[in-house]
This record gives sequence, structure tokens and C-alpha cells, in this order.
Amino acid sequence: MIKLHDIAEGVKKGQLRALAKAITLVESRNIDHSVAATTLLDELLPASGNSIRLGISGVPGAGKSTIIEALGLHLTGLGHKVAVLAVDPTSQLSGGSILGDKTRMEALSRDPNAFIRPSPSGDTLGGVARKTRETMLVCEAAGYDVIIVETVGVGQSEITVASMVDFFMLLQLPGAGDELQGIKKGVMEIADAIFINKAEGDNRPKAELARQQYLNALHLLKPKSTNWQVPVRLCSALHKQGIAEAWQTVHDFTQAMKASGEFEQKRRLQATDWMWTLTMNDLKDLFMHDRNVAALLTQMQQAVAQGITTPGAASRRLIEVFKRGH
Amino acid sequence: MIKLHDIAEGVKKGQLRALAKAITLVESRNIDHSVAATTLLDELLPASGNSIRLGISGVPGAGKSTIIEALGLHLTGLGHKVAVLAVDPTSQLSGGSILGDKTRMEALSRDPNAFIRPSPSGDTLGGVARKTRETMLVCEAAGYDVIIVETVGVGQSEITVASMVDFFMLLQLPGAGDELQGIKKGVMEIADAIFINKAEGDNRPKAELARQQYLNALHLLKPKSTNWQVPVRLCSALHKQGIAEAWQTVHDFTQAMKASGEFEQKRRLQATDWMWTLTMNDLKDLFMHDRNVAALLTQMQQAVAQGITTPGAASRRLIEVFKRGH
Repeated sequence: MIKLHDIAEGVKKGQLRALAKAITLVESRNIDHSVAATTLLDELLPASGNSIRLGISGVPGAGKSTIIEALGLHLTGLGHKVAVLAVDPTSQLSGGSILGDKTRMEALSRDPNAFIRPSPSGDTLGGVARKTRETMLVCEAAGYDVIIVETVGVGQSEITVASMVDFFMLLQLPGAGDELQGIKKGVMEIADAIFINKAEGDNRPKAELARQQYLNALHLLKPKSTNWQVPVRLCSALHKQGIAEAWQTVHDFTQAMKASGEFEQKRRLQATDWMWTLTMNDLKDLFMHDRNVAALLTQMQQAVAQGITTPGAASRRLIEVFKRGH
Repeated sequence: MIKLHDIAEGVKKGQLRALAKAITLVESRNIDHSVAATTLLDELLPASGNSIRLGISGVPGAGKSTIIEALGLHLTGLGHKVAVLAVDPTSQLSGGSILGDKTRMEALSRDPNAFIRPSPSGDTLGGVARKTRETMLVCEAAGYDVIIVETVGVGQSEITVASMVDFFMLLQLPGAGDELQGIKKGVMEIADAIFINKAEGDNRPKAELARQQYLNALHLLKPKSTNWQVPVRLCSALHKQGIAEAWQTVHDFTQAMKASGEFEQKRRLQATDWMWTLTMNDLKDLFMHDRNVAALLTQMQQAVAQGITTPGAASRRLIEVFKRGH
């Protein structure tokens, strides 16, 4: 029997063993653990929330690890406690695009005020995201006051991470016009700041050009908030240039959002949206695993694809068999 | 008693009275009509699909009506039968952003080979979209081989229309850099072509500049298909300049998509996606109207917003009471 209350108390005292146990529980696929995790999270919830939640994304090679390490060390130097989490839905398939081992952020992983956790594995982005959100709450309850959530530029993962953080930073490389750097649909719209990394030496003019291109593109988009203009800044994580400025940007942003009330509003909305997402996912699962629905589903889907049945008629039949079975 | 078979036969013969009856049935909120409409649509389905489905959107004042009228007359002149439908989720509130009366497309509405139908009213975008999709099938069965679906640049309506057409045209005005023209999130990504209208007289240089800005912005986005590069063209609907070229663009696009198999693939995907959307909507309705869920919902939502309960715990409780009640 797991002593949940003891784990919760240990987490709140910032004990690393308790933290590890709590996260293991949250990440477990065991159904009993899942129930225990719900209870634990409800106990930790009042102690959570006192952090800045920061999302970072960028194409492979943009230097995410380097900037997170530099930023993390800068923050622990200022007295913060930093947790680095990851959302990598590819982790199951290939060992992941974001390496799980701590060797890639060696100095930060030795820092007693930093906690690095690789991406949980999970079949779906939804599963991975759920675990990361819950781990975030556990870390907050343990006193980490800056949570960095890293993600890869794959599929919907950036949108998902943006929906769980206060500030979303997009990391790019000089040479924005290149086909290789093609920005995924909707990603530029969710950025609260764009940083062009590796703006060093010969890269500098290219980085400046890229900056201008992003600014032009941003100009064509409606701003997310009337109280914030998305900045495009240059940095060199390798030479630790622009790191303090990056944190200043996050700070300016959160100040502006807190002053306007958007900070709390966004968090409340994120929480209720998340409740809905989870509920709709579970409802869909319930539906898909219904015996009567499962028996009819493939047939209906094919009939619709082949133009034999209208989507409306197919949908009505599926809902009817679901109702009948309940 | 409505003689459904007679209506279906009348529609297939292109009889306007039967067409009007069928659409009235499809648009009705009466539950008996809804069942009848499903039967009718299943009968019409084999005769539908033989059209080009064209979506047109643009900011208010971009000249949507003028270009649709010019394009419609050009098409009937070429021997096509053209149906113009609209998706305007604001129609209930304010009489709509897209005027329902035919006076705004006077010449086209007098053309015997054109059929203009104002936006159905409906509480939600989903409801309006459902009716428009079904009306589209009815029009196709009646022999209309070009369906134009017009929408306003409001909320999600453009994304919704893009998901029901083969080709999505975004109409813009010269002066793209202006704040007023700020492009909504995600809209540029769904365009298959951008037309800058009112590129006449003194506006010409501004239109050229806008064209270049859109091309630059498009360059930063990943293309939707490797077989199509989104063109940005100038036109003047008022002076009927660029209308034949616009149709040529649609033609080139559909040829390329048909050759690569993407045309059929997209339609199949749209139909099954639509089935899913309808099913998930009905499932959500079922859930929300469940007595046990309804009794708990507000409480859970508030608890989550106030940080008393985690979204995960709230979601689990809601799903449990739903299961218990069935």
C-alpha cells in the first residue's frame, strides 16, 4: 500500500525521493496507480500554481537543450528552482527526438536547484500531455517556481504545449526564408516570443534578415493580446548571449499579463479546457469500445468514404446503436 | 405526408420547386423533417458529387458578392450551372454579415442557370455548416456543377467552409500591411489561392505590394500539397478583370489534384471527418443532457477554475456519473 499522504507531505517539503515517487505514480499506466494519482494530485493542488510555466519549441538543431541549460543556470543563479519537463510524442517509437538522458544538459542536471525529467512515454500526444501537465503540478507543489516544458516541432505537440504554459517561446535558426525552416501551420500564431539562436559570427547578418522576415510575417497576423507585441530577438545560447534578455522578456510578459488580468484568466481557461479535453477523450473511448458501435463502425466509415451513405445518416445510426446499448 | 421519392425525382430532374422543398427539409429544425431529410439525402447521394466545390472568404468590403456575381455569370456563360450557398453563423443575431436578399447579386439571381440560397440560420456554426453541406449535395443532385460557398471572415467559419470544399479562395484588399487587414489565425494556411481585389487605378501599386507581402508570408508556411503552389493574383471584380483567370486557377488546381489522386482522397477524408464531427457533437449532446452529468457539471467546472479540483479528477467524476446513469 502506498502511503499517499506521506508522499504528498514529502513533495511539499521538496524531497526528491517523494517527488520521484509522485511522478512515477502520475506516469504509471496501472489503473490503481491512476486512481491514487488523482487523490495525490488533489492533495497537492493547493500548493501548486506558484510558478512561471514556460514552453520552448524549435526545429531539431535549433539549440533547445543549449538554451534551456543556459537559461536554467541563469535562473538557479538568481535563486529560482527550475524543473525541465518534455513533451515528446515520438519517444515511444524511436527513443525520441528529445534525448531522455541528462548528459545533454550536464551542468544543469548537476545543479541541486534544477530537476530534469525526460518525456513520459505514451501512445498518444494526449497521453503524454496529460502526464506532463500533472507532473508540472507536482513540481510546483515541490517548490519549483520556473517550469520549462520543452517540445519538438512535430505534429500537434507545440499547440499542446502552448495550451499548458503561460509563455511560449519559439526558437529558430538564421535563414528563415529557407524551405527547410518552413514553419508549421499555426505555430507562429501561438508564439509569445521568437528567438533566433546561433546569431553569432558570420551568422549575424543572416539572423538579422531572418528577424526582419519574422517581424513582417507577424505583422500579418492578429495579435493574441492587445497588451503584448511578440518580439523577435537574437541570441547565442552557446556564447550565453541574450539569455538574461530572454528571461527579461518572460518577466515583462508575465508582468503585463498579470496587470491586465489575462494571466489568471488564461490559466483558468487552460484548466477548464483541459477538463473538457480529458472528458471528451474518455467519452470517445467509451463510445469506440461500445460493442454495438464497434460492430458497425468500419462498415459506416467505408460507406461514407465510398459515397454510399451520407455522413449525417451514418452518424445518426452510430449514435442510435450506442444509445440502445446503454 | 411528404412524398420523399417524388421530391428526390424532381430534384434529379433539376426542378426548382422540388429543389426548394428538399432544401427546406434539410434546413428544418423539426425532428420528423430531420429523419425525412436523412432518407432523402441517401436517395440523392448517388447523383451528387459531380461538381467543383469552391469556397470564398474575405474581410467585409473585400467584394465577395461582386466577385461571386462576376464569376457566376462567367461560368453560366460557359454553360455551367452554378449554385451559391453561404455559411454565416451571425445570420441569427444581426440579420447576418452576408445579406440574404438576392438584390446584392441582381444579375446572377435572374440567371436561370444560377441558384442563390442565403445562409441557413442556426444557433451554432456546426448547425449552419451541417445544413450547408447537405444543401450542397442536393444542389449537385439537381445538376449544379459549380457550387460556390461564401463565408465571412468571422471566427471559425472559414476553417469550416474549407473543410467542405475542393478549393478555397481568400479574397483580400490592397494594403495587406495595415492592421485592419490582420489575417486571422490559420486562415492563410487553408487558402488554395489568394486574390487581391480592387486592384484598379490608383490601387494598383498598393495591390502589387500586398501581393509581394502575401507571397513572402506564404513562403514561411509549409505547402498543403507538393503538387500546388498557392498563387497570389490581382483582380478587379468591378471591372471584370481577372475573373476568367480566377476560374482558370480553379481549373488548374483541380486538374493537378485529380492527376495526383488528392482530389478524391480529400473528398473521402472530408466525408469521414464530417461523420466524426457529427457523431462527436451528438455524443457530446447526449453527455451534456444526461441528468447526472448536468447536475454535477457547473460544480466541477467551477472547482477546476478555482483550483480546488484537478481537471483529471473532475473529468473522471463526470465520466463515472455518465456511465452509472446508462
